[in-house]
Amino acid sequence: MEEILIFGGGGQAKVIIDTIRCQNKYKVAGVITNDKSTTRTECCGFPIYHEDKLPELKIYKGIVALGDNWRRSLEVNNILSKFPSFEFITAIHPSSVIGQDCKIGPGTWVAAGVVINPSCTIGAHCVVNTSSSLDHDCVMKDFSSVAPGAHTGGNVTIYDFTTVSIGAQVIHGITIGAHTVIGAGAVVLESVPERVVAYGVPCRAMHARQIGDKYL
Amino acid sequence: MEEILIFGGGGQAKVIIDTIRCQNKYKVAGVITNDKSTTRTECCGFPIYHEDKLPELKIYKGIVALGDNWRRSLEVNNILSKFPSFEFITAIHPSSVIGQDCKIGPGTWVAAGVVINPSCTIGAHCVVNTSSSLDHDCVMKDFSSVAPGAHTGGNVTIYDFTTVSIGAQVIHGITIGAHTVIGAGAVVLESVPERVVAYGVPCRAMHARQIGDKYL
Amino acid sequence: MEEILIFGGGGQAKVIIDTIRCQNKYKVAGVITNDKSTTRTECCGFPIYHEDKLPELKIYKGIVALGDNWRRSLEVNNILSKFPSFEFITAIHPSSVIGQDCKIGPGTWVAAGVVINPSCTIGAHCVVNTSSSLDHDCVMKDFSSVAPGAHTGGNVTIYDFTTVSIGAQVIHGITIGAHTVIGAGAVVLESVPERVVAYGVPCRAMHARQIGDKYL
Repeated sequence: MEEILIFGGGGQAKVIIDTIRCQNKYKVAGVITNDKSTTRTECCGFPIYHEDKLPELKIYKGIVALGDNWRRSLEVNNILSKFPSFEFITAIHPSSVIGQDCKIGPGTWVAAGVVINPSCTIGAHCVVNTSSSLDHDCVMKDFSSVAPGAHTGGNVTIYDFTTVSIGAQVIHGITIGAHTVIGAGAVVLESVPERVVAYGVPCRAMHARQIGDKYL
Repeated sequence: MEEILIFGGGGQAKVIIDTIRCQNKYKVAGVITNDKSTTRTECCGFPIYHEDKLPELKIYKGIVALGDNWRRSLEVNNILSKFPSFEFITAIHPSSVIGQDCKIGPGTWVAAGVVINPSCTIGAHCVVNTSSSLDHDCVMKDFSSVAPGAHTGGNVTIYDFTTVSIGAQVIHGITIGAHTVIGAGAVVLESVPERVVAYGVPCRAMHARQIGDKYL
Repeated sequence: MEEILIFGGGGQAKVIIDTIRCQNKYKVAGVITNDKSTTRTECCGFPIYHEDKLPELKIYKGIVALGDNWRRSLEVNNILSKFPSFEFITAIHPSSVIGQDCKIGPGTWVAAGVVINPSCTIGAHCVVNTSSSLDHDCVMKDFSSVAPGAHTGGNVTIYDFTTVSIGAQVIHGITIGAHTVIGAGAVVLESVPERVVAYGVPCRAMHARQIGDKYL
């Protein structure tokens, strides 16, 4: 089995490592952190290495396991700046159901219990988290995410770096702009612009948001 | 494998065709439309025929793939008026879990990721959509539907032509009258009469609704 | 297969019996009730016995199938007072996904369609109901429950006897105190104290609650 690296040693890493274990396609060689102060030496039974160690490991395949979309993109760019041919895997839990004619980009994680209906296009470095679902013809652009228990109707488009939080519901045909956060449990009945925090039942844009703002 | 026809060539058809592919029990012979103006000739790789072509096809088995409950019933009646012995199949995704002593009527679709607990009775031409669940002893009458991510407690009855929209939650013991729409993300704590649009947290009947009104 | 008993003959028993049938590890020998007035003699095809009959049956293994956390604990204590070495089984539906390093206590039921992510600790006599999910590092203390379609983020702790009702969403890092009820469809953004009923979007503690108060 091909050896891969996991970037990020927190809870997201733990769940993605479990997905990879069930996927039974890649062997985790180690977990990479950029936190010099950490004293932890293992994560889920795998050694934790500081990223300075990367050249020695000679493994150029892996996935970034950070829940925050923006931080995930910074780490992807960091890796590619050092190793331009680094290859990102897709981690897909075998309990997920993926319909015909779906495209799923590199670096994307599809968690346990997910349903992705036919003709969806999911970009690179996305998170489709536990027990969420996308109906037919949805699009998730690069570095976007949907949280546990979030569901969309058909023909929904979620732009880059946008997150749909836990238990939010998005009816068919909605577009959600880039760098936006849809709050937990929101019910999205109308399209949402980019760079806002929007929440409530029904979901309303509540305030502006800058690119890279923390959302969790 | 027996050949069947799919009536309706939109997103619902796409997802039902995917269910049938996974079910691996029927062979889709074609997709039937009553839209004379369409220029599309295929859907998911299957030929699209105008319904005038039906007599030539000599296939008398299939399912109506229209999300709107009322439109679905009109098409079922239309088919039966021309071919009274036409047989409607049940399309059940193999990832769904169906408990003991459940009855599921002809023409009904059970999508991916669905859980139907024991002793439920689901009528004819219903939709139990992606990642929804019904608890024990629920009843869905003919031409009713539950949308993605909707969940019910036990002993819930959903009457004919009624829809429970995406992410709505219905506590145990509730009855929802016929021709009613429960809005997206609604939390249904009290029974809801027939022929209303009801939504909110908690769910309230907001206005009357006529039989056959569009709901999507 | 080892013979077991089910305590409680209602809807919860029906669904747990179905889980045990699918689990294919135990043989249900009968259903035990403490209701002397019942005239029912069978449940899901299994004989119903009054609990006076227990000594004769000579079966000291089983599970309590009552949805109310407090009533479930009374029945567990009742059984243990008579048979101190009675052994409670875990009933886990094979369609559920359970991550690495999870602990699940005796007497606990994990329903169909559930996802429990890695490193969760679920106590004794808990209910993880249909299509719910727990993210990584969650803790459910003894006699707690999550209802259908409820989802939690990571590092959530649900204390003893507390219930999270149907479709409620709990963001990461939240603690919910003991003997509390989180209402249907609630969106929990802040930790919730013990002994309250809390609901709404966002979820607020609405009134106090006494230990043992009925919640369904």
